[in-house]
Amino acid sequence: MAQPALIPADKLRTWGSAIFQATGMATNEADVCADVLVDSNLRGIDTHGIYLANLYARRLKIGLMNPKPNLTFEKRRAAIGVLDGDFGLGQWITYEATRHAMELAKDAGIGVVAVKNSNHFGAAAYYTQMMARHDMIGLVMSDGECDVVPFGGREKFCGTDPISLCVPADKQPWFCMDMATSEVAFGKVRAAAEAGKTIPPNWAVDRNGNPVTDAKQAYAVVPMSGAKGYALGIMIEILSSQLTGMPFGPHIIRKFDDWDNKSFLGHYVQAIDISAFCDPADFRKRIDRMFTELKAIPTAPGFNEIMVPGEPEERRKAERSKTGCPIRAEDVALLTRLGADLAVPFPA
Amino acid sequence: MAQPALIPADKLRTWGSAIFQATGMATNEADVCADVLVDSNLRGIDTHGIYLANLYARRLKIGLMNPKPNLTFEKRRAAIGVLDGDFGLGQWITYEATRHAMELAKDAGIGVVAVKNSNHFGAAAYYTQMMARHDMIGLVMSDGECDVVPFGGREKFCGTDPISLCVPADKQPWFCMDMATSEVAFGKVRAAAEAGKTIPPNWAVDRNGNPVTDAKQAYAVVPMSGAKGYALGIMIEILSSQLTGMPFGPHIIRKFDDWDNKSFLGHYVQAIDISAFCDPADFRKRIDRMFTELKAIPTAPGFNEIMVPGEPEERRKAERSKTGCPIRAEDVALLTRLGADLAVPFPA
Repeated sequence: MAQPALIPADKLRTWGSAIFQATGMATNEADVCADVLVDSNLRGIDTHGIYLANLYARRLKIGLMNPKPNLTFEKRRAAIGVLDGDFGLGQWITYEATRHAMELAKDAGIGVVAVKNSNHFGAAAYYTQMMARHDMIGLVMSDGECDVVPFGGREKFCGTDPISLCVPADKQPWFCMDMATSEVAFGKVRAAAEAGKTIPPNWAVDRNGNPVTDAKQAYAVVPMSGAKGYALGIMIEILSSQLTGMPFGPHIIRKFDDWDNKSFLGHYVQAIDISAFCDPADFRKRIDRMFTELKAIPTAPGFNEIMVPGEPEERRKAERSKTGCPIRAEDVALLTRLGADLAVPFPA
Repeated sequence: MAQPALIPADKLRTWGSAIFQATGMATNEADVCADVLVDSNLRGIDTHGIYLANLYARRLKIGLMNPKPNLTFEKRRAAIGVLDGDFGLGQWITYEATRHAMELAKDAGIGVVAVKNSNHFGAAAYYTQMMARHDMIGLVMSDGECDVVPFGGREKFCGTDPISLCVPADKQPWFCMDMATSEVAFGKVRAAAEAGKTIPPNWAVDRNGNPVTDAKQAYAVVPMSGAKGYALGIMIEILSSQLTGMPFGPHIIRKFDDWDNKSFLGHYVQAIDISAFCDPADFRKRIDRMFTELKAIPTAPGFNEIMVPGEPEERRKAERSKTGCPIRAEDVALLTRLGADLAVPFPA
C-alpha cells in the first residue's frame, strides 16, 4: 500500500477553497468550507476531512447541493431562531447558524438556532470550538444517515447522530466532546471487513439482529450502551430535525449513494454565554482546577495519562500543523482527478 | 425474605407530605417533595422513591438540610436565571427551578436555570415531564456522588451524573430519557455483591483499575461506552456545577455516609418552548409519526417489541397506579420507625 502524502494544511485550505469557488461558491463561503474540512484533517478526523471536497463538488455540479444558497434567518424569540440553509454546503450553513446562535446568546444569555434544508456539515467540533473561543459553551447536534438499529430492533432507524459540546478552559486543554451515539462509527466496521479482521461482539449486528464478530456479516451498528445510546440517538434526531419538520432517520438520503435526491438535513446549534452566569475568566480558571485534579488521577492499567475529552485531537492538530496532514494515496488520486476536472491542480 | 407491601400511591403521598411537614416544611413544599418521591415508586425507580424520606428527615433534623429554605431567584438575562436553593430539599428547589425555566422559555423561547446550594432531587424525569406537559422540551442534569472512574483512570472522579430529556407526543408515549452516564448504577453492582452473583466485565473495576466480574471486588463503576460516557459525565458535571461554582465530582459529599457536612449540589434545568418553532399540536403529531415508524421496526432476537425511551416506566406507572407500589419489607420497617418518631404512622 502506498504511503499517505504529507500536505501542509494551508495548501489544502487554499486548494479546497479554490475548488469550491470553481463550483460557483462565493470566496468567503468557500474559505469557510475548506477551513472546516482541513481542520478535521488536522485533528485526525480524516473521515470528515478534505477528501469530502470530491463528494461535495460532484453533488454541487448536478444541482443536489446549492453553490449560491440564499440563507434566510428568522429570529423567532429573544433566544430562538430558525435558519433555512437553502441546500448550501452544511459547513457554511452551520457556520452561519453558529454566528446567529452567539448573537442571540450575547443578548439573551443562550441562543438556539434550528437549521433546516442543510447538508452534511463535517465535524461538529468546529462550530462548538468557535463558540468556546468567544467564552460560550457550544452545543451542536445533527441527524445523519441511518446506520444504527434501535434498542431491541433489527432494522436501522437512527443515524450515528453526532453531538459535540465545547467548554473553554484557561491553561488546561478545553473540553471538546464530539462523538457519534453509536457504539462505533460504521466506518470502523467497514475497515475491519476490508482488513479481514474480527470485531468485538458489542459493535454490530447482522440482518437478523444478532451480534456479529465477523465484520463482513455486519448490517448495522448498535447504539452505545444499548438502551442509553438509543435514547441519546432519538433525542438528537428529535432536536435536529423535528423542531423544523425535517426528515428523520430512515428518510435521510445517503450522500455517497443517492444521486437523485437532495439531502434535507437538520441541525441543532446552541450557544450559552458564560458571562450570563459569572466572569468568564473565573469560569475558565474553575475549569482548569477541575481538569488539573482530573489529570492527577492515577491511571488504570494500559494508560499513561488521563486526557480531557478532545485533548488527543488537540495534540494531533499541534503535530499536524507542523508535519502536514497525511492524505491517503487513494484520496490523493481522487483529489488530483477532481483538481484536473476543475483546473485547480491538487498540491500533492 | 419477606414480601414487599403493596401500598396505594395516594397513601404514600399523604404520609410523605405529613412527614416533611412534621420536620417543619410548609405544606405545599412538603406536598411537592412527597409527590416527586412517590412518582418514582410508581415508575418503578424505587431507588429514588419514598424510602428516601427517612434519609431526608434525618438530615433535616440535624440541620444538614433546611426545612424552611429561602429560595432566591435571580434573572440574569432574558433566558437565564440562577436559583439559590438555600439547602432545602432538592425536589422543592428543582420544582421551582423548573417553573422559572418555563417562565423564561415562554418569553425567550428557551429558559435555563442554574441551581446552586441544592440537595439530591430524586428522579430527573419528574421535572422534564412537568415541562413536556406544557408543550416544552425539558432537559435536566445534576451532578452527584462520585462513583465513576474517568476513562483511563483508576480513582473515582465523576458522579453517575443523571441526564433527563422529555419530549411530548400525541397518542404515542412521550419520549422520556432519564439515565446515569455510568455503564450501570452502582446499586446494581452492590445488589450483585449481596446476592453473590458475578457481573459483566464492562461494569466495574477494582482498586487497581482492572475490570472485575466478582461484584464484591468492585470499587467503582465505569463510564458508559468508555471514552464517550466519560465525556458525557464531564459535560454534566460542568453544566450542573461549574456555571455557579458548586463543588464537582470528588468534592461532593455522600448523603448516606457524611453526617457532618451539607451537600452543595448543582443542577442544570432547561426548557425549550416548542411554540417558538411550530404549532405544538403539529409537533406532537410529528413525534407520533416518528414513533409509529419506530415501533414498526422488526424486533431483534429476545425482544417482543420496540419501546420508546421511558415507555417501560410509563407502563409500570399505569400498573402501579392500580395495584399500589411495592415497598420492600426492610423499607416498611424503616419508614414505620420514622413514622413513629414523628408521630405520623406509616400506612403499611
